[in-house]
Amino acid sequence: MSTPEIVHAVRWADGREAVRIVDQRLLPERFVERELQTLDDVCEAITTLAVRGAPAIGIAGAMGLAVAVQREASGDRARFDACVSDAAARIRETRPTAVNLPWALARAVDAARRAPGDAAAALEALRDEATRILEEDRAMCRRIGECGLPLVPDGARVLTHCNAGALATGGIGTALAPVYLAALEGRRVQVWADETRPLLQGSRLTAWELARAGIPVTVIADAMAAALMRTRQVDLVLVGADRIAANGDVANKIGTYALAVLARHHGIPFYVAAPSSTIDAATPTGDAIEIEQRDGDEIRRGFGRPTAPADAAVWNPAFDVTPAALITGIITDVALHRPPFEFPMSR
Amino acid sequence: MSTPEIVHAVRWADGREAVRIVDQRLLPERFVERELQTLDDVCEAITTLAVRGAPAIGIAGAMGLAVAVQREASGDRARFDACVSDAAARIRETRPTAVNLPWALARAVDAARRAPGDAAAALEALRDEATRILEEDRAMCRRIGECGLPLVPDGARVLTHCNAGALATGGIGTALAPVYLAALEGRRVQVWADETRPLLQGSRLTAWELARAGIPVTVIADAMAAALMRTRQVDLVLVGADRIAANGDVANKIGTYALAVLARHHGIPFYVAAPSSTIDAATPTGDAIEIEQRDGDEIRRGFGRPTAPADAAVWNPAFDVTPAALITGIITDVALHRPPFEFPMSR
Repeated sequence: MSTPEIVHAVRWADGREAVRIVDQRLLPERFVERELQTLDDVCEAITTLAVRGAPAIGIAGAMGLAVAVQREASGDRARFDACVSDAAARIRETRPTAVNLPWALARAVDAARRAPGDAAAALEALRDEATRILEEDRAMCRRIGECGLPLVPDGARVLTHCNAGALATGGIGTALAPVYLAALEGRRVQVWADETRPLLQGSRLTAWELARAGIPVTVIADAMAAALMRTRQVDLVLVGADRIAANGDVANKIGTYALAVLARHHGIPFYVAAPSSTIDAATPTGDAIEIEQRDGDEIRRGFGRPTAPADAAVWNPAFDVTPAALITGIITDVALHRPPFEFPMSR
Repeated sequence: MSTPEIVHAVRWADGREAVRIVDQRLLPERFVERELQTLDDVCEAITTLAVRGAPAIGIAGAMGLAVAVQREASGDRARFDACVSDAAARIRETRPTAVNLPWALARAVDAARRAPGDAAAALEALRDEATRILEEDRAMCRRIGECGLPLVPDGARVLTHCNAGALATGGIGTALAPVYLAALEGRRVQVWADETRPLLQGSRLTAWELARAGIPVTVIADAMAAALMRTRQVDLVLVGADRIAANGDVANKIGTYALAVLARHHGIPFYVAAPSSTIDAATPTGDAIEIEQRDGDEIRRGFGRPTAPADAAVWNPAFDVTPAALITGIITDVALHRPPFEFPMSR
């Protein structure tokens, strides 16, 4: 196969004067890259999920901050610093629960503030810090890929859930990173993508980015994974993580736990891939993780028309918890961790 | 709770001069009953899935045959008999794979043909036979309900998949029959309805008919069932069957097998309910059951807009096979069968 062309969810355009993003609201129908050139552009892109995925949001926020304040860089330094603070506050409000966004913004603001010299110098420092955040994320994705690469031999058939791919990060993704690296090495890899109801990140995003990279991908409805396993068409399961507890319990997109149980029943290895920053040492076990309940209309009318009675009761948790006992290994940018998991590990 | 008002999917209207059906194409948005008064009405209703579910289709076909030929009943007997044959042939073609439809039509045609007397007498015999098919189906549903009733105690929380309810039969359904009878006896029952991708029979139909009957029902995306079980919110799983092999392996809507594995992992009983006619003694095990692959567009654009890339590869089997070893019991109109299953059983 030819070298995979892996999509860039977020990158610089025009000599760092704009942020170029893939507009994920239009996928899978149309592939459109947009350039964010103002504070309003940046806030709107994050608010409306044109850019999504915790790492990608953080990167877009920091880079977007530089774009938002660049017109002030020819003026007074004190005024510039105030602009940076104001713009950062506005961007921070766009997604109140994402942890990467305030973290990346704080880094960018701090770098600008600490920079000596005039406003132009502070802008350069801000741009440099945003670039570092992007580059660190890219390197992190790549290291996850390298740690997981031995798990994806030639001919491997990988089942994944949701989107933990390039579209969610600045680099080659988390769960999909080992898949991309295997393909880059010339290994034949085949991916099964759960469509991932209710929001269909698997069929809309994972299927799109893998197909674009030339990696064979087949979409299934979530309830079909068990039949795939029973007919011996899956070699391993590879999913991302939203939070990992100190004992190795994993919170991830709803439906992940079902795959872990099914994989165990069929003797198929089940791997989780995530940045080591996802490990939360302050969370002893998965029982301590609060599960967000989302709007029932995602199930009642998720496709622009009613798919259930308008007043139907709905249970719509965003995540589930997979106990460590069902996990074959956790792939981070540091290592491939095998059970028993005891985090934080020495690095 | 008040007495459940259980919907009638198919019944007579106007002194047996029309067939009244629930137009299931409009659910869950609108509850509309239509009267089928001509051969064209009957064929269109079956072709377009206004009426669906193997038992309901058979009943609608036989009753519809009587409606289609009733204008000929004042004329010549030979001409009437020919009309019956022609109309039966046209109705039979509407759904070539459903086994109940040719079976019910053959019974109705035969009853008309064997009737002594004039055309009017033959029409009455045809109407009587169609009525018997309806009544037998109603009685069969009720017996399934009675055989399964002990499994649904007061307070039971039942998880079901797809629609094996009143909307699929002439009576109170198959998998839902024990639920309806429990409610009729005053037991408090709560149902979790898998939405059942790709065609959403669970969220569109099961949720609608249970809510209409006043039985508490909550819709979940299919991938959420595992998390429900892990958090101890399911007491039993109750599903229908499309075919049951002699050894007890069950073919049913895709996603059923996943529930069986998950139920076993969580120590939750898993029951199948179906007419004893569903047991196919000529099929030794589930391995002999061929699984229909359906159009990938059900997954790629099942909701009137693209939910995956237009050219995405898709795996879309209509059914899966649940091995007998995972089944706690099979409820038929004859008995509650416990493993080891050895069909045909003595009746």
